Amino acid sequence: MTKLQQLQRYLNENNVDAAFITTPDNVFYFSGFKSDPHERLLGVMVFKDAKPFLICPQMEVPDALAAGWNFEAVGHQDTENAWDVVAKTIASRNLEISAMAIEKSHLSVERLEELQARYPSATFTRLDDKINAMRVIKDEAELEKMRKAAALADFAIEVGVSEIAEGKTEMEVLNAIESAIKAKGYAMSFDTMVLAGEKAASPHGHPGDRKIQRGDMILFDLGVLYEGYCSDITRTVAFGEPNEEQKAIYNAVRKANEDAIAAVKPGVRAMDLDKIARDAITEAGYGQYFTHRLGHGLGISVHEFPSITGTNEVALNPGTVFTIEPGIYKTNIAGVRIEDDVVVTEDGVEVLTKYTKELVIL
Amino acid sequence: MTKLQQLQRYLNENNVDAAFITTPDNVFYFSGFKSDPHERLLGVMVFKDAKPFLICPQMEVPDALAAGWNFEAVGHQDTENAWDVVAKTIASRNLEISAMAIEKSHLSVERLEELQARYPSATFTRLDDKINAMRVIKDEAELEKMRKAAALADFAIEVGVSEIAEGKTEMEVLNAIESAIKAKGYAMSFDTMVLAGEKAASPHGHPGDRKIQRGDMILFDLGVLYEGYCSDITRTVAFGEPNEEQKAIYNAVRKANEDAIAAVKPGVRAMDLDKIARDAITEAGYGQYFTHRLGHGLGISVHEFPSITGTNEVALNPGTVFTIEPGIYKTNIAGVRIEDDVVVTEDGVEVLTKYTKELVIL
Repeated sequence: MTKLQQLQRYLNENNVDAAFITTPDNVFYFSGFKSDPHERLLGVMVFKDAKPFLICPQMEVPDALAAGWNFEAVGHQDTENAWDVVAKTIASRNLEISAMAIEKSHLSVERLEELQARYPSATFTRLDDKINAMRVIKDEAELEKMRKAAALADFAIEVGVSEIAEGKTEMEVLNAIESAIKAKGYAMSFDTMVLAGEKAASPHGHPGDRKIQRGDMILFDLGVLYEGYCSDITRTVAFGEPNEEQKAIYNAVRKANEDAIAAVKPGVRAMDLDKIARDAITEAGYGQYFTHRLGHGLGISVHEFPSITGTNEVALNPGTVFTIEPGIYKTNIAGVRIEDDVVVTEDGVEVLTKYTKELVIL
Repeated sequence: MTKLQQLQRYLNENNVDAAFITTPDNVFYFSGFKSDPHERLLGVMVFKDAKPFLICPQMEVPDALAAGWNFEAVGHQDTENAWDVVAKTIASRNLEISAMAIEKSHLSVERLEELQARYPSATFTRLDDKINAMRVIKDEAELEKMRKAAALADFAIEVGVSEIAEGKTEMEVLNAIESAIKAKGYAMSFDTMVLAGEKAASPHGHPGDRKIQRGDMILFDLGVLYEGYCSDITRTVAFGEPNEEQKAIYNAVRKANEDAIAAVKPGVRAMDLDKIARDAITEAGYGQYFTHRLGHGLGISVHEFPSITGTNEVALNPGTVFTIEPGIYKTNIAGVRIEDDVVVTEDGVEVLTKYTKELVIL
């Protein structure tokens, strides 16, 4: 059953006539068409018992079809009211709308009023939770894209590590990484971080002119997009022999990462994983320096459901992809984070990112 | 009268009890506090006849006060419902809410429902147009910040031009510009563009590894933030003597820019300015290569009201700041754009960006 068919079944089960999807990432999820229309209208209208259509700016219609959208793609010009175009398309199919599901956490009040003006007796129900529940479980085609995105992230770390040299700036190393990914024809999934020495230990560090010097630990946090799916990896390496405390911090983070990964299996709760990692770091004496959640869901968005926090009771099911990224940030000593992308499998876990977690000493 | 007092007067005139402002740029406009809270609640609640309060994540309260917010700053913890905190704060003042103005083009349906659940008999009216009408007119304090932002943009162009040399990449020149601005303690207002040769003539060019060579025209498009206000400048320079067609294109763009600037005065319509610039380029024979609007409003946002297009009939009033940025993009010949930031004055125009428009030949 395709994703559109799953959504149609939901509409039938809940007796909702249509679902209107306007979040760009969700439009991509259901249509294969990735676009950021800014203030212009982009959406997928799915019906209980009719074929869906996509509405987008006229000039994007060829792109939508080229992206694999198999149904009607309705264009709107800047000179016409896009909501009238939507209503006209629905009317041309002789469909009644007495209930429509919308993304309430995304759709603006102004846009809801456009719909209400055209369907004044309709009720508007919440679609967000259904889509989140669908997106959180990746199918095999999605997992295959995420494996490739993760392999590209591993390659990007290799490039970064190979570029490290005394006197080079964080930005020079960062540019080398991004150039290598671009040369392969891919884009980063978020702004690359390369942080050296005390910069890596600061929660608000940004890559800049800081020159790499002996004794630095260097933190890379990056990701690559593969056919619309994100990877997200962090590795921390040493330039020159690290001191005892730096080694202890590295080992504590690595243990937290590995303990949490070892506990991933169907039914484990997000909060359990966070606690396992936090316990490992606390036992090593660094609990106060692990200042963020363990991880986050990953897929079309860099941050999506579920959040891996100490209070999230959600149980994880096979197909859920998320990051495990414990860290210790001790001012003027070291900032270390080790992040992997993992997927819950039927009998445990698959780790998508594969770059070594042995401490690399350059 | 302060901006908050102007808004209070509006509430009194329209008999609306409160206005709730949640767009980060509008929160900054009314509070002086700039923050991007992502999914957390940030807002300014303004009352018809009581003191306003700011609601923000608890950890941001000190930042809001340090930014100059003079009224109550109410923090909310991640463990409590921020909407309950809002309602409790209103209740503690014994205020009735039977009408509330909201930003309908920004507030999500989910957030409106949170308000409706707490004020079920209230009506919710549209605040967007009032705020746009206020923001479009800059007061002298705002203009002074924009003059400084523009002077920093002029400086950034100087740095960029001085960095041009055979064999340097676009990214190397770009990094030199951004480092120089950062060294002065400022940030760019958007992603800097440095495009050389055929890259400048492409509407979708992004700075990369393209090396600068003799015969290139090089386009800089950049801006700097000064105390929350943006500048936005474009200049195009020649590396080596340009050929006749490149010179003709440059001169046509310059004439379009200067003709439009000369026509700025109170009451001129946005569409008139667009036509004046477009006519100059069409007369030079390049009309088909000027493929975008003439400009856009500028202020706290890089793009704000009004849009300077061929169909916008709005008349411009003193205090309105916008860009004038005609361009000609002829594949494999030249991409030239010249952009200034201007403000309508009581008797004409003030040009904020001052870098020369003589063709610079390096």
